[in-house]
Amino acid sequence: MPYVNIKVTKESGGLTKAEKETLVKGVTNLLEETLNKNPASTVVIIDEIDTDNYGLGAELITDRRKRGQ
Amino acid sequence: MPYVNIKVTKESGGLTKAEKETLVKGVTNLLEETLNKNPASTVVIIDEIDTDNYGLGAELITDRRKRGQ
Amino acid sequence: MPYVNIKVTKESGGLTKAEKETLVKGVTNLLEETLNKNPASTVVIIDEIDTDNYGLGAELITDRRKRGQ
Amino acid sequence: MPYVNIKVTKESGGLTKAEKETLVKGVTNLLEETLNKNPASTVVIIDEIDTDNYGLGAELITDRRKRGQ
Amino acid sequence: MPYVNIKVTKESGGLTKAEKETLVKGVTNLLEETLNKNPASTVVIIDEIDTDNYGLGAELITDRRKRGQ
Amino acid sequence: MPYVNIKVTKESGGLTKAEKETLVKGVTNLLEETLNKNPASTVVIIDEIDTDNYGLGAELITDRRKRGQ
Repeated sequence: MPYVNIKVTKESGGLTKAEKETLVKGVTNLLEETLNKNPASTVVIIDEIDTDNYGLGAELITDRRKRGQ
Repeated sequence: MPYVNIKVTKESGGLTKAEKETLVKGVTNLLEETLNKNPASTVVIIDEIDTDNYGLGAELITDRRKRGQ
Repeated sequence: MPYVNIKVTKESGGLTKAEKETLVKGVTNLLEETLNKNPASTVVIIDEIDTDNYGLGAELITDRRKRGQ
Repeated sequence: MPYVNIKVTKESGGLTKAEKETLVKGVTNLLEETLNKNPASTVVIIDEIDTDNYGLGAELITDRRKRGQ
Repeated sequence: MPYVNIKVTKESGGLTKAEKETLVKGVTNLLEETLNKNPASTVVIIDEIDTDNYGLGAELITDRRKRGQ
Repeated sequence: MPYVNIKVTKESGGLTKAEKETLVKGVTNLLEETLNKNPASTVVIIDEIDTDNYGLGAELITDRRKRGQ
């Protein structure tokens, strides 16, 4: 019954459904293989955050992207 | 001054305002009755998550819904 | 499959097991009654926070308690 | 490498980009000055929450605002 | 710069350091492979939760374990 | 009524009470000055995370510290 929350920036229209499936399956499998956790009750929530609302290194990701980072 | 975060999937247009009120009142009352916490400073935040961003059992809720679950 | 996180201060030795059960049952029932959510997959996590690590009104709860609040 | 999450209500169109920058810089500086944390790896995420989804004092912020609070 | 939070119950003394390393590496790799996210700034925080503080199916994990679940 | 959560590693015995006060006051003031948020209902929770449970760059902070980072 683990709970996992993944926060990533929302860029170029956001994650595709296939990418979300890959993340959910990948994390669920990792927890089953590493800790023997039951995949049936593993919850994974993906938050896509606007680049204006995500800061790293004292600046917004929006501005890092403009600088090519 | 408890803090409560409720995450549910956003389905069929999302929760109504009345449903949100019921959740906020219900959780606040529960904390007052159980732990004598002050309702005036109890914070409740409701996150409505797209079914594509919510995984359970290694699959997206979107796909569980299609299978009738 | 809702996910709920409750954060309360840890005071006088922390919550009893009975209090934790009351919170878990209460929140799970509230979500079933209000939104028809499946109780079998509803997750509730209770975080008990040291009063030195919980701030309200620009001061630590530890100091509010000393002032009788 | 601290991680900070700020949740505020989304009112009057939401925060401006300049306000978000001020928050990100301010929190990052505070952590560097207080705890000597490396600003380069400090993450700050700002969540703007609809006033219907934010409860305080057993009521929604939407309704507090209508009462002038 | 993704942020990932993994919450699991703390059982039998908690996760080993090797298990924590496996989770951190596994999730960081998954985000790099799936979304091309920079591993250098990917943050993963693991919360080990007491079984008395983790509820599923309207009961505490402590009590589910006693029933053999 | 903003809610802020700060997660930092727990090193050398953890934060002092004075450091926690500085963080709580600093963040609360920042939100009042930047967004005119009411300090009386601003909640700040500080989580001190074991260096074994905090990963950055696909490794545990414990191991980064050993390498002098």
